[in-house]
Amino acid sequence: MADSPTLAELTARVRAFADARDWERFHSPRNLAMAVSVEAGELLELYLWSSDGGPQPLHPDRVPKVADEAADVLMCLLNLCDRAGVDLAAALTDKLARAELKYPADRVRGQALKYDEYPEWEPGRRR
Amino acid sequence: MADSPTLAELTARVRAFADARDWERFHSPRNLAMAVSVEAGELLELYLWSSDGGPQPLHPDRVPKVADEAADVLMCLLNLCDRAGVDLAAALTDKLARAELKYPADRVRGQALKYDEYPEWEPGRRR
Amino acid sequence: MADSPTLAELTARVRAFADARDWERFHSPRNLAMAVSVEAGELLELYLWSSDGGPQPLHPDRVPKVADEAADVLMCLLNLCDRAGVDLAAALTDKLARAELKYPADRVRGQALKYDEYPEWEPGRRR
Amino acid sequence: MADSPTLAELTARVRAFADARDWERFHSPRNLAMAVSVEAGELLELYLWSSDGGPQPLHPDRVPKVADEAADVLMCLLNLCDRAGVDLAAALTDKLARAELKYPADRVRGQALKYDEYPEWEPGRRR
Repeated sequence: MADSPTLAELTARVRAFADARDWERFHSPRNLAMAVSVEAGELLELYLWSSDGGPQPLHPDRVPKVADEAADVLMCLLNLCDRAGVDLAAALTDKLARAELKYPADRVRGQALKYDEYPEWEPGRRR
Repeated sequence: MADSPTLAELTARVRAFADARDWERFHSPRNLAMAVSVEAGELLELYLWSSDGGPQPLHPDRVPKVADEAADVLMCLLNLCDRAGVDLAAALTDKLARAELKYPADRVRGQALKYDEYPEWEPGRRR
Repeated sequence: MADSPTLAELTARVRAFADARDWERFHSPRNLAMAVSVEAGELLELYLWSSDGGPQPLHPDRVPKVADEAADVLMCLLNLCDRAGVDLAAALTDKLARAELKYPADRVRGQALKYDEYPEWEPGRRR
Repeated sequence: MADSPTLAELTARVRAFADARDWERFHSPRNLAMAVSVEAGELLELYLWSSDGGPQPLHPDRVPKVADEAADVLMCLLNLCDRAGVDLAAALTDKLARAELKYPADRVRGQALKYDEYPEWEPGRRR
């Protein structure tokens, strides 16, 4: 893990790229949220018409594109958080802490429903 | 930047969360690509009907949700890269290197067209 | 309006296109929902980096593409409803009827908040 | 098919709904393209974590929601075409005519690759 860059380092790099091009003017949080969605769609397109485990695996031409499109999503997401004043690492920590409560491991193991679709779920119930 | 977590650390944390719930079976790269797109849509929804710089700023109830939805996108993206064998940091480095060539700073400054929409763009032209 | 095709006619046409290619096997509702999302992303991309009313209108090369991408979204959506047994026209009628209650014209006029973001909104309130 | 509404009729209905609320001001084509994408994400979410044909079918609570979310996509798409001056029925006709050339039935039968992923595909080749 020693060589893995931090979120702060990656953010600084994508910001430098945009700044060198005077792209701040286009980089409103709203525009960047659109860009995240567009790039997520391009990532998803690579998996279109294949099946989860079935007879038609990912077309070999598409494999290297997954990394490429994933990088696009990350670049836009880092730019968005940078411009919207979001501390993405802190947000992920918060998210995981809340998800631990919403999806207790002993209850949801091996199932992938939304938290309010479990038979025993009661609105407003505290754990 | 000293305290910012690395991508590898964040990946280890989201993987541990999924593993504790036996969610690997749902976490095919394809399913995770769907999840990235769904979460990107929820992020985008927060900016819907507002305007870029105009009279209707982001509704105050939505501000904290931006961090929350951005974290969801990142969580799904890290899981996807983990399961698809993608080195996301390397992919971002590659992406930026190619984007430097596709969008030379002195040419595209202050404009936000796609690389093939610039008047002087010629298909196949090398720089 | 006499010449406008019905949803049923359009559905029959997109189904015939798929059937002639033996594409039913790929056209699970789930795959088609992915396709709707991918095509919606391509439509959105055309509006990326422009501004709502501002100095950078839609690039002229993109104008005809809007019709093209909108048709892609419709084609996938009709296929999805066809395969999932959804009566799309009835669903739209239901949706509008419920939206009339959720967004009463005299209350929401000229505002574009979600129904639960209006100051006077009360959970569970009936009208 | 006699009772199926035409696209023009459906467009008139969604336009009347927006007009009664003075929502034209929010209904720029760009905003509506965002809305199509957001609604497509909500539709896709219903299929998340299930599998194409496998052990975890669509959760029964989600079935009626498919119709509901599909109607949302259609409503936004019709509004977008209305505001952007797109004749959606004509666009679909054009799209199908071009798709007939790009994906000849005798060549692509039973396969679901992109047109440029077929082994015999040659850039610029005419048929």
